Amino acid sequence: MSMEGVNLNANRLVGQKLAVAVTMGDQLGIGPEITVKALTTWVGRHECDVYIHGGEEVLLAAANAAGVSPFWLKATHVGGSDRNAVGCYSVVGGMVLGAPSSELNDARQQIEANAGERSFAAVLGAIEQAKLGLVQAIVTGPISKLGWALAGHSEYPGHTELLGEHLGRGRADETVMFFSGPRIKLVLATVHVPLADVPRILTTERIVRAAELGVQACRAQGVAHVRVAVCGLNPHAGEEGLLGEEDARVIAPAVVLLRARGVDAFGPLSADSVFLKAAGLAKAGRDAGCFDLFVAMYHDQGLIPVKLLDRELSVNVTLGLRDGVVRTSPAHGTARDIAGKNIADPGSMLAALDLALALAKQQRALRLA
Amino acid sequence: MSMEGVNLNANRLVGQKLAVAVTMGDQLGIGPEITVKALTTWVGRHECDVYIHGGEEVLLAAANAAGVSPFWLKATHVGGSDRNAVGCYSVVGGMVLGAPSSELNDARQQIEANAGERSFAAVLGAIEQAKLGLVQAIVTGPISKLGWALAGHSEYPGHTELLGEHLGRGRADETVMFFSGPRIKLVLATVHVPLADVPRILTTERIVRAAELGVQACRAQGVAHVRVAVCGLNPHAGEEGLLGEEDARVIAPAVVLLRARGVDAFGPLSADSVFLKAAGLAKAGRDAGCFDLFVAMYHDQGLIPVKLLDRELSVNVTLGLRDGVVRTSPAHGTARDIAGKNIADPGSMLAALDLALALAKQQRALRLA
Repeated sequence: MSMEGVNLNANRLVGQKLAVAVTMGDQLGIGPEITVKALTTWVGRHECDVYIHGGEEVLLAAANAAGVSPFWLKATHVGGSDRNAVGCYSVVGGMVLGAPSSELNDARQQIEANAGERSFAAVLGAIEQAKLGLVQAIVTGPISKLGWALAGHSEYPGHTELLGEHLGRGRADETVMFFSGPRIKLVLATVHVPLADVPRILTTERIVRAAELGVQACRAQGVAHVRVAVCGLNPHAGEEGLLGEEDARVIAPAVVLLRARGVDAFGPLSADSVFLKAAGLAKAGRDAGCFDLFVAMYHDQGLIPVKLLDRELSVNVTLGLRDGVVRTSPAHGTARDIAGKNIADPGSMLAALDLALALAKQQRALRLA
Repeated sequence: MSMEGVNLNANRLVGQKLAVAVTMGDQLGIGPEITVKALTTWVGRHECDVYIHGGEEVLLAAANAAGVSPFWLKATHVGGSDRNAVGCYSVVGGMVLGAPSSELNDARQQIEANAGERSFAAVLGAIEQAKLGLVQAIVTGPISKLGWALAGHSEYPGHTELLGEHLGRGRADETVMFFSGPRIKLVLATVHVPLADVPRILTTERIVRAAELGVQACRAQGVAHVRVAVCGLNPHAGEEGLLGEEDARVIAPAVVLLRARGVDAFGPLSADSVFLKAAGLAKAGRDAGCFDLFVAMYHDQGLIPVKLLDRELSVNVTLGLRDGVVRTSPAHGTARDIAGKNIADPGSMLAALDLALALAKQQRALRLA
């Protein structure tokens, strides 16, 4: 199997056509609805194969509810059913027969667990395709952490950790979270750790790696010259050492290193005011003082401006996976309160599909160069 | 002097008229310009006496540049020149003859130091009036930290620390920073400390005190029922202990205590998404899910949303000073790049004056009750 994977991977690299795996996410939320709505209108379908994971009957139900005619083929194996058709979608994987646990003591929990297991299996299926080189990008619909936990997968708080385990490159080379929206693009130097641990685990290397991967992702989206704002950690970026020493000891050297490597980086900059300089906020033309990419030092420092500026229009991206595999996701959650009402907006899913294709194209170009 | 102060204070409390001290801030920035522009149009002048600190010749120059006729009387002592005139402004204090230091080795530094010393002396003058009970509120124009440092006052990073030293109530009862703008009102549980120290110094008491003072300030602005969002410290408010224990150990008990005291508080809430529920963002009418006041755990968590949502329209308030003295300030800085061009907008200064008067009225009502 692994030799076959290598061969397929090599073929894929030489060929022109890319492939994307899409997971529908939590079936109790809007994931299946935005998947069918987005895929039926996605112009990118003419440039890649698409594999849909999460169960055909879920997809069919969502299509019926959305008034969309079935547009996919049933894949007989993970390699797809009809690789030569243009704009062809394949649905992968079948019914999942329920969560492994029998300790759940009510029907609602069982439903949650089933949905959790199915969405978990869908991501595993996409990962398997990526490992085999059958897809170069994964687009993940929103999942329920509770569902994953009830299905016995509480060790994974989310997609990022599961992807990191299977497609990561080890501790020294961790994945990086990138957010791309119409107003702001941002990478995180640290992610899901207690705030008290951030000053300790923040290193110059982490910051440089996050910034460089972020710059590359900006270039894939057509930003030729990427101006990078590196946030400070402490209030007022440490106020010249009065309010903490990490800004001078850890962050400033990262900026020096980035500049030495040709990245147009600035910082450490006071995080309370720097986000007013997001490029997407510039009113007319290009504002000379604005930044194309922000490097935030920790979760809330980055996610507060991302959510305030781009609401649900941001795309969440996992950078730094093995073999140049990219993963994108709509930034919103399962939105169960509007599930089944046929009112969900597929805009963020479409943006996630577009960005996955753009990043996959860039990776292919880099490999072929 | 102290007995006289007590007597004046007692008289003030019985009488109807309030008094506000205004400091012009850094004379090399827009402070004097927004002071004259704001005061000439301020409707609140008919409800209080106003003392202007920072040097009459600075005020005169700013008035001339702004095309405003002189509208003030020269005060012969800190108690004012004509206490019975309606809408009367008094200018307090005279020329400051330069910084005490003679170590400054160029002319620009000497100019900075002079401006720093003058703006520092102006705040001291306002503090002196507050200590004597001659004013119930202080409105401070933006100062230059560099100027203060060059004038030998580097021990004070800003107004808050200087006010805290002279008008504070001791360590156990620290002052609280409150931000009030059209879209968001917010208090900080901790302020100018290194991020690494935040988890250690954050206490249930600090959070409760900040929230209660913030609720009172919201009421002074006409919010009858104040819904309070208390932010988490860690990513996703700690994710049930997986990402840090302070949310459960320190913050959750603060919410319980606040609710027991009749405050409609919620939390700890995930800080990355909670700011989308700021009351001022509600599009039409009153959104049942929104919050009137936010309690942020640390500087950037609070200041990032305040600056993104309200830009330069927020008013910075110091709550919890001795004797119910209030201090407000425009949220913007000295804006030296536009100083002397007569294009500065006095909007934030006017909002700071309005809020100072509203808070002073509330304090008087509370004392007379």
